[in-house]
Amino acid sequence: MALPKQSEDFPAWYQAVVKGAEMAEPSLVRGTMVIRPYGYAIWERIQAAVDRRIKDTGHENLYFPLFIPSKLLEKEAEHVEGFAPEVAVVTHAGGEKLDEPIVVRPTSETIIWETYAKWIQSYRDLPLLYNQWANVVRWELRPRVFLRTTEFLWQEGHTAHETADEAMAESRTVLDQVYRATVEEDMAIPVRLGRKSAAQRFPGAVETFTMEALMRDGRALQAGTSHYLGQNFAKAYEVRFLGREGKEEYAWATSWGVSTRLVGALIMAHGDDLGLRLPPAMAPIQVVIVPIYRSDAERDAVLAAAGELAGALRQRAVRVKVDDREEHRPGYKFNEWEVKGVPIRIEIGPRDLAQSQVVLYRRDLLQKAPIALAGLEDRIPELLAGIQAELLAQAAAFREQRTFRPATYQELVRLIEDPGGLVEALWCGSPACEEKVKVETKATIRALSLDPPAPGEVEGVCIVCGEPATEWAVFAQAY
Amino acid sequence: MALPKQSEDFPAWYQAVVKGAEMAEPSLVRGTMVIRPYGYAIWERIQAAVDRRIKDTGHENLYFPLFIPSKLLEKEAEHVEGFAPEVAVVTHAGGEKLDEPIVVRPTSETIIWETYAKWIQSYRDLPLLYNQWANVVRWELRPRVFLRTTEFLWQEGHTAHETADEAMAESRTVLDQVYRATVEEDMAIPVRLGRKSAAQRFPGAVETFTMEALMRDGRALQAGTSHYLGQNFAKAYEVRFLGREGKEEYAWATSWGVSTRLVGALIMAHGDDLGLRLPPAMAPIQVVIVPIYRSDAERDAVLAAAGELAGALRQRAVRVKVDDREEHRPGYKFNEWEVKGVPIRIEIGPRDLAQSQVVLYRRDLLQKAPIALAGLEDRIPELLAGIQAELLAQAAAFREQRTFRPATYQELVRLIEDPGGLVEALWCGSPACEEKVKVETKATIRALSLDPPAPGEVEGVCIVCGEPATEWAVFAQAY
Repeated sequence: MALPKQSEDFPAWYQAVVKGAEMAEPSLVRGTMVIRPYGYAIWERIQAAVDRRIKDTGHENLYFPLFIPSKLLEKEAEHVEGFAPEVAVVTHAGGEKLDEPIVVRPTSETIIWETYAKWIQSYRDLPLLYNQWANVVRWELRPRVFLRTTEFLWQEGHTAHETADEAMAESRTVLDQVYRATVEEDMAIPVRLGRKSAAQRFPGAVETFTMEALMRDGRALQAGTSHYLGQNFAKAYEVRFLGREGKEEYAWATSWGVSTRLVGALIMAHGDDLGLRLPPAMAPIQVVIVPIYRSDAERDAVLAAAGELAGALRQRAVRVKVDDREEHRPGYKFNEWEVKGVPIRIEIGPRDLAQSQVVLYRRDLLQKAPIALAGLEDRIPELLAGIQAELLAQAAAFREQRTFRPATYQELVRLIEDPGGLVEALWCGSPACEEKVKVETKATIRALSLDPPAPGEVEGVCIVCGEPATEWAVFAQAY
Repeated sequence: MALPKQSEDFPAWYQAVVKGAEMAEPSLVRGTMVIRPYGYAIWERIQAAVDRRIKDTGHENLYFPLFIPSKLLEKEAEHVEGFAPEVAVVTHAGGEKLDEPIVVRPTSETIIWETYAKWIQSYRDLPLLYNQWANVVRWELRPRVFLRTTEFLWQEGHTAHETADEAMAESRTVLDQVYRATVEEDMAIPVRLGRKSAAQRFPGAVETFTMEALMRDGRALQAGTSHYLGQNFAKAYEVRFLGREGKEEYAWATSWGVSTRLVGALIMAHGDDLGLRLPPAMAPIQVVIVPIYRSDAERDAVLAAAGELAGALRQRAVRVKVDDREEHRPGYKFNEWEVKGVPIRIEIGPRDLAQSQVVLYRRDLLQKAPIALAGLEDRIPELLAGIQAELLAQAAAFREQRTFRPATYQELVRLIEDPGGLVEALWCGSPACEEKVKVETKATIRALSLDPPAPGEVEGVCIVCGEPATEWAVFAQAY
């Protein structure tokens, strides 16, 4: 299949890849999607990588209900203001109208903190380091598969702590050791960590930390967030405990999440004009073997060799598939596995076999070369590690090339428009300047430095208004 | 904590175990539950065991939306009749009243078969062997934690096939190789496989196969079902394909599921008056080490030994916890881990250490004995395997003892009442006889033989009406 060129129509290219690689498709209710097996297998790998790190950092999984009494949502003022316009409401169930409407969770702080009030009595009950894997619903006016869907799958961590410092440390630990580690090490996408500006904060948070990734069209994608919630939810839901000093105190909170949006990030950070390019750690199929033959005798010999190689690779824990479909020609198969981003393709034909070799194609470099069959099963794991590193390096180089420091506001505006990327500039901290950039360029502040600079640490003037700047900001158009 | 005696008040015992072992608790919306970390960790082990076998038998995971247009539910007549009274309905979203109400999935046949219509064109597209892990909602009038909740977690497999035989074989394969294998091998619960009577069939199924387990109060629990759906859904949703002979045909279907209900089965199949008893394959903690000391010096020595043993066990992939909490005495800890069903408890005190031994307590046998510390890390995995086998043997012996073949209807009625169990009897096949037993004893037909007997194969008369019997049926009160 021919895809739209990435450089010419990025949104059309994205949709064509999602469809062509059989990753997902829109479903009947507005903004919902079916995640097809190939897309879901990638999500399972993301889940496993995140879940392992969530557990390694001392958290446990649990599960809270999908349904929240609508009254409960209203207790934290900023939170309800942020989410009320987006919720889906159940008014009838079991054949009857309900006395009180029920909200389908858009996120679970409310029901979780209502429940934590029962679980937390003393400082000995703290910290609670819990996470859940769940679906959530937010009514989307402009849905886009994986990136912005009415229902999406995610994990949401919700922790409760004895002190503010501990909660702050938790939100930063998850951002770095769980999220950044997964996205960089397993998904091969370099990320920028930082704070959000007040305008971009999670409703109810004191501080929102973010992990921003750069897509190949120059737009940023918020790939995960971790919120330091202070005592806002503890106060709204009356979560008090008896402290070490014998006094009643409110607990300190964090929450944090990544979602199926990460599948979209993977597509847009690595894909090219031929389709997906999957980092081997994320690839449901790491190696595809395509047999090439003309006669039945050739077929038998080639399939035997393919089966033997596949067996040897499986023993080395390589995920390999022999594409022995009779109804398709090799060229069709090459194309299909390119769209699906399989890192290595091996072509086995009778002439190759006669020379004890095969042809190996690397999806990351688009390079094809003969390689000796002897010992190939031992070279493949190294090659896969090399491809993983190569994709990260390519993405890092692209980000480097698309990170700018304009000298003037005019230059900032121009760079955001063309070629687009992460535009670093000094900012005075005023929401008015942030808003002006947004209105004039559609770019928002994606990230501030992780730690706020000390007073006087930053010198220079705001790129927007010329008043003294307080810190550096990264501006970009974003998904 | 003291639990109600299992033999005296089984429902109160069950609730106390669920609460005492910190497995789950009711949440705010009627019939929903919070699955707490200890309960969820058990569910994760069940999930992993089921998921592995689902994949080993050739299935792939995917994900369909939570929301189904209400019109879609109405296309399969029996199905809508079965589920319409139980659904929760979203009527408002994004701050507006919806044009068409949306149903929260009670099960996903409808949306899946609507989608399969797009995916299935030719016999080459078949079979589709797909599964999803998801939450579903059925409005429950008499909710009971894990057993019957408004929202529950499950997997639902939905397959499409070229022929009736293939679909029938699929439904039987999953029942045996996925469900029975998991429940018997990993959960140590013996199960009875069989067909359901027409009255107990899944709405829309041609044949429902079931896996029934016996709980320790003599009641049966339907632990999983697999449905042969014939062409009912293919016809309702117009899923046709071009067959090998060049003719348009309707696809053949199966669906099958197990849910968080299995956690309830685990509790009620193995639990005793002291609480849970977990098969080692399901236990989040397989070995708990409780240090015993009076002085700081003793404490240091004992904790060092505990840490060393724990390290050696972890290297052997044993899930071990050292309970070094200062605020609780050993007796409190013993009690807590008994309620939580940890298979092995190891007590390490200074006197034991002086003799290079520890005290080992087996939760399955309630037996406590000293054991040499040298080489203990190598004996524990064997002991765990032994406990796994012992729990299965105990459950099998209990089932044996509680399986009856009454000679008369009066005896059947009496046995169902006292002591309760699986009551096998000849049945004429009439819904009226089945209903009579239900009305008079609250027992239903839990299972018929997997294959229907050939005409004339079964001799004798129906235990209810005395007319010629057509087959054996297992009657029991059930959850």
